[in-house]
Amino acid sequence: MPHTCETRFRVRYAETDQMSVVYYANYLVWMEVGRTDFCKMLGFNYKEMERDGAFLVVTEASCRYLAPARYDDAIVVETRLDRLNRRFVTFGYSIRNADTGNILAEGSTVHVAVGLDQKPKSVPQPYFDMLTKAARQAGE
Amino acid sequence: MPHTCETRFRVRYAETDQMSVVYYANYLVWMEVGRTDFCKMLGFNYKEMERDGAFLVVTEASCRYLAPARYDDAIVVETRLDRLNRRFVTFGYSIRNADTGNILAEGSTVHVAVGLDQKPKSVPQPYFDMLTKAARQAGE
Amino acid sequence: MPHTCETRFRVRYAETDQMSVVYYANYLVWMEVGRTDFCKMLGFNYKEMERDGAFLVVTEASCRYLAPARYDDAIVVETRLDRLNRRFVTFGYSIRNADTGNILAEGSTVHVAVGLDQKPKSVPQPYFDMLTKAARQAGE
Amino acid sequence: MPHTCETRFRVRYAETDQMSVVYYANYLVWMEVGRTDFCKMLGFNYKEMERDGAFLVVTEASCRYLAPARYDDAIVVETRLDRLNRRFVTFGYSIRNADTGNILAEGSTVHVAVGLDQKPKSVPQPYFDMLTKAARQAGE
Repeated sequence: MPHTCETRFRVRYAETDQMSVVYYANYLVWMEVGRTDFCKMLGFNYKEMERDGAFLVVTEASCRYLAPARYDDAIVVETRLDRLNRRFVTFGYSIRNADTGNILAEGSTVHVAVGLDQKPKSVPQPYFDMLTKAARQAGE
Repeated sequence: MPHTCETRFRVRYAETDQMSVVYYANYLVWMEVGRTDFCKMLGFNYKEMERDGAFLVVTEASCRYLAPARYDDAIVVETRLDRLNRRFVTFGYSIRNADTGNILAEGSTVHVAVGLDQKPKSVPQPYFDMLTKAARQAGE
Repeated sequence: MPHTCETRFRVRYAETDQMSVVYYANYLVWMEVGRTDFCKMLGFNYKEMERDGAFLVVTEASCRYLAPARYDDAIVVETRLDRLNRRFVTFGYSIRNADTGNILAEGSTVHVAVGLDQKPKSVPQPYFDMLTKAARQAGE
Repeated sequence: MPHTCETRFRVRYAETDQMSVVYYANYLVWMEVGRTDFCKMLGFNYKEMERDGAFLVVTEASCRYLAPARYDDAIVVETRLDRLNRRFVTFGYSIRNADTGNILAEGSTVHVAVGLDQKPKSVPQPYFDMLTKAARQAGE
């Protein structure tokens, strides 16, 4: 199993702004799309984890913007697990233009596991196990 | 009590697209902002109605675009109640440039009341009464 | 050549709202994604048409919402050309859940061709020819 | 002249997600709204600076999320100038619930000045002077 996940899509017109490039907040949406795919690759559906009453709430997000993305550009988001413990999960993202290979942005999000009561809790065991496996492979 | 409600704000950079005008889907967001204010003017908080287990789900939305809105333009959304019965509520919207008075768009949304089970139900009495009052005034 | 175009993607978390379904304005974004693909299927890149100084500005949009879409649902947007003349183009859209086949929404957008000066002009000949071909096939 | 700028608005339904809180990317939109107001307070319209052929492109953005914001919450964004030189401008943001005073998020964005050719250039003199004045006051 690879320890990174690639997600591909094209830039939507809605995502551009009057500078004719993708508006900066949309990269965080793209990270979320990458994250969803990454979790599926590990074998769990984040949707199901929410149904099980556990949520991964974002506590930090950051992005460095290196080159602009434009309407209809082919984008690839590479998602990886950067850090993991019982309470916190950190994902890293490289966003590239799929045709040129140019890096457009590098990002990171930190998540804390919470329950339905919005209070911190441990990542439920089966999900934690799947994340651990991914963390190990990333470290190899 | 007036039978229309005016909501004012400025165009966000995020709302523009590469044509340097506001992206067309954002007018539906503005209608929602107007709707929220209209309900407050009637004396109810839509937020509370949701807490009471009743939701106004959109079943139809339409918009005619007459002139473009640009970044930082002052916008005014005029919201009114166009039709009302136990099951359906229709809101109408006129969106203007607040400085020039020019009409930018005319819109309409139709809503059906549903419960937590997503099944149609009547608009709860106290909310229906407030809407009825507004419908009467609009008809006068 | 088929006269409709299918575009497939999954619902993003960003597209949901607190009712746990896709926020209504996002269906207009999906229509735009379908439209982009439809134009490509006909053989032209809308991006290039803009570079040639011709824009298809939305003058009307409407949507009927039949069933909700939820996070991570597989969506298919079917786009077709509904009407065409020198000045106006009307696209129609059927949005379905790709797994169940259920229709989620039916939409329509009307566009007018404008130049860089934002004044109406005819759809440029090569693009008009490609649209005409699609219109003919749709009529057969 | 104060050296921070306060921007107030209410959470839009569109900004919530299925966790019933504001989706994390929207905080970057709010920062942009604060930034626009901050520049106006200094005496310049960012819109005009773009017309003069100078753009402040985001090169870094980060946000720490401390407490959730919910639909219709009154929000206040406090924007300040954190660092300034000829090429780079750093803005800082504190986002609070206007009713409770609770801090919801702390953010930061770094911008580089570019020309119409997308190449780095110095911030144009009149704009730089206004930013310098604000930087001095912030340092006092």
